[in-house]
Amino acid sequence: MSKIISVNAGSSSLKFQLFEMPSETVLTSGIVEKIGFEDAMFTIKVDGEKIKKTLPIPDHTKAVALLLEALVEYKIVNSLDEIVGAGHRAVHGGEIFKESVPVTDDVVAKFASLNDLAPLHNPAGLVGYNAFKENLPSCKHVFVFDTAFHQTMPKESYIYALPMRYYDEYKIRRYGFHGTSHKYVSLRCAELMNKDVKDTKIITCHLGNGASITAVDGGKSINTSMGFTPLAGVMMGTRCGDIDPAIVTYVMKKEGLTPDEMDTVMNKQSGMLGVSGISSDARDIEDACKEGNESAILTTEVYVNRVINTVGGYYAQLGGADAIVFTGGIGENDTNIRRLVCERLKDAFGIVLDEELNAKSRGKELLLSKPESKVQVWLIPTNEELMIARDTFALLGE
Amino acid sequence: MSKIISVNAGSSSLKFQLFEMPSETVLTSGIVEKIGFEDAMFTIKVDGEKIKKTLPIPDHTKAVALLLEALVEYKIVNSLDEIVGAGHRAVHGGEIFKESVPVTDDVVAKFASLNDLAPLHNPAGLVGYNAFKENLPSCKHVFVFDTAFHQTMPKESYIYALPMRYYDEYKIRRYGFHGTSHKYVSLRCAELMNKDVKDTKIITCHLGNGASITAVDGGKSINTSMGFTPLAGVMMGTRCGDIDPAIVTYVMKKEGLTPDEMDTVMNKQSGMLGVSGISSDARDIEDACKEGNESAILTTEVYVNRVINTVGGYYAQLGGADAIVFTGGIGENDTNIRRLVCERLKDAFGIVLDEELNAKSRGKELLLSKPESKVQVWLIPTNEELMIARDTFALLGE
Repeated sequence: MSKIISVNAGSSSLKFQLFEMPSETVLTSGIVEKIGFEDAMFTIKVDGEKIKKTLPIPDHTKAVALLLEALVEYKIVNSLDEIVGAGHRAVHGGEIFKESVPVTDDVVAKFASLNDLAPLHNPAGLVGYNAFKENLPSCKHVFVFDTAFHQTMPKESYIYALPMRYYDEYKIRRYGFHGTSHKYVSLRCAELMNKDVKDTKIITCHLGNGASITAVDGGKSINTSMGFTPLAGVMMGTRCGDIDPAIVTYVMKKEGLTPDEMDTVMNKQSGMLGVSGISSDARDIEDACKEGNESAILTTEVYVNRVINTVGGYYAQLGGADAIVFTGGIGENDTNIRRLVCERLKDAFGIVLDEELNAKSRGKELLLSKPESKVQVWLIPTNEELMIARDTFALLGE
Repeated sequence: MSKIISVNAGSSSLKFQLFEMPSETVLTSGIVEKIGFEDAMFTIKVDGEKIKKTLPIPDHTKAVALLLEALVEYKIVNSLDEIVGAGHRAVHGGEIFKESVPVTDDVVAKFASLNDLAPLHNPAGLVGYNAFKENLPSCKHVFVFDTAFHQTMPKESYIYALPMRYYDEYKIRRYGFHGTSHKYVSLRCAELMNKDVKDTKIITCHLGNGASITAVDGGKSINTSMGFTPLAGVMMGTRCGDIDPAIVTYVMKKEGLTPDEMDTVMNKQSGMLGVSGISSDARDIEDACKEGNESAILTTEVYVNRVINTVGGYYAQLGGADAIVFTGGIGENDTNIRRLVCERLKDAFGIVLDEELNAKSRGKELLLSKPESKVQVWLIPTNEELMIARDTFALLGE
């Protein structure tokens, strides 16, 4: 038996989950927030109870030291030697990393070379890795990339209709993100359908604050809605998703914005927040819809429109679909958006949602469609942490 | 019987077609090119033969005077009084013009107020109108807008997930273009299917040097792939279509481009030309494909990918489709792209193309699918000139 820790490091945060493998038992989970501040917060689950401490945590290395001490203190592990593997979420693997890899100096150098493609996320991933490596030098470290699952896309999906030198010189292409989530739920969906994933065509809708939709053919991503960056595709909490690219330059000229300022508009002030003027949180939008707020209703309609257009496109590219999966914060919990999406897909694809079941189902694995539905509709909570632990466990011997 | 002239004015060109209405007989057609130059060219069809003259034509007014003189000289009309209506292609009608309108001073003022939305096209349309008005003061003038047909789109289709003040202040929304073409072929398709257009769901693919795809529900546009500008949607001859909007700012920063320079890249150096490095002309790409040129093959694959994803999205939004129509230079003549698109849609939508018929069919009205096809596939040459003449004729009494 092996203990594996899954790590997701942000610039000032660090989420972790400790697994017993191969049983996949969760031993604990937690988060360190506001790293670098006097009032940093450390939260860890012990025997199902959350223990929370506020204290100064100067950097990621101290944060990791703290959480490892807690693992021993609360007797979650007897000794840190029991932790044989640490899997690190690494956002952007570019075209270099097509699957999870054990971390070596060479891997670190290559990963750092991709900083330009993910200037916020990749450096944070490295900081997290370094902090763990310092504290757990003898454990096996593995990088698990958000982009890796999508590296199976055919060129027709990932090449943009731009001058090809942008691809050659700057590596501008569709990469896609949320890959670990799309992989997890598509595998799980095949399992739940009692099918070999190779014999399935699945459209996975990861709808959260960020959102992406993927066409999974026989377990392989063949297209996905996020693109060169996580801005593309369907609309999100604060991101606009796909728009006429001429709007970017038009608004820049109208308002005298720099490229960076325009990026901020499209990433932080758009999406549900931009259309509704209320909130970037789908729960607030749903509440406002119930009160008859017109901006909130429009926001939901635009959101559903983008989802059904993307799903329809992937249905075409896949040549049909066995199942549609909803996951992510909205996909798992927003019964209204799920209902609207499925309603709008009924006539085209013969989808028949069990509306009663849908209305009461949040956050648990469930078949939401009726038996006569031509495409099954599944609710599958995502589990990126487990997927990271699995990949890490599988690479222990390498 | 009434003679109606259809006019399409560009900044240095003027295309015309003269109809006998309501019989819709074409009496003549022609074009004036290089207006403003010493070597301007005037071409007119007389008894099926093209007569071509090269001469200095200083402006649109002189161009119109020349073509009107020619109509009398070649006895196409006995007197210019016979021309009771002139229909002018007016590109951008914004949200003001939801259908064709007789031109008044008020209409001209409103149309000019939209110049900012179509800085190249709307002023040219006005120049063309003024030239005709001067030469044919007693004839009825009508504006027919490229955007009007799409004004039936629901908000869910036309609102972008951007801050709403861009819509309120700058009128940034999806407008769509090629409306006259999409309207013509969808009406014609319903006729050819012996159906009331109100009972049809049709996906119209106008694939030319510019390209757009429209979802037509009961004769009304409910979504279309071009957007705020004609840059959006599927890839085109030199236009990129939809891309991750973050690429716009990324490339601007990398290459130090201004918004206008970036617009030029996306409008003039992208699309088929950008991906292939060969040509913006689909015929050159097809020839290169036959020779096994890899860039040309990739270009075609990316093109087909974007078309099938858009068609699939509209199939979903329409709740199914009775027919797909191909029109425009590529849609009417590129048998290879039609074949590939239909092949890729076979499994998802049960489309069965008559490949033999498709391979030999160019530029004529034809059902291209086999009887067992679940969605009919039609080849319908577009006829915007006729549509303009019809609208003008219908408005003569107003």
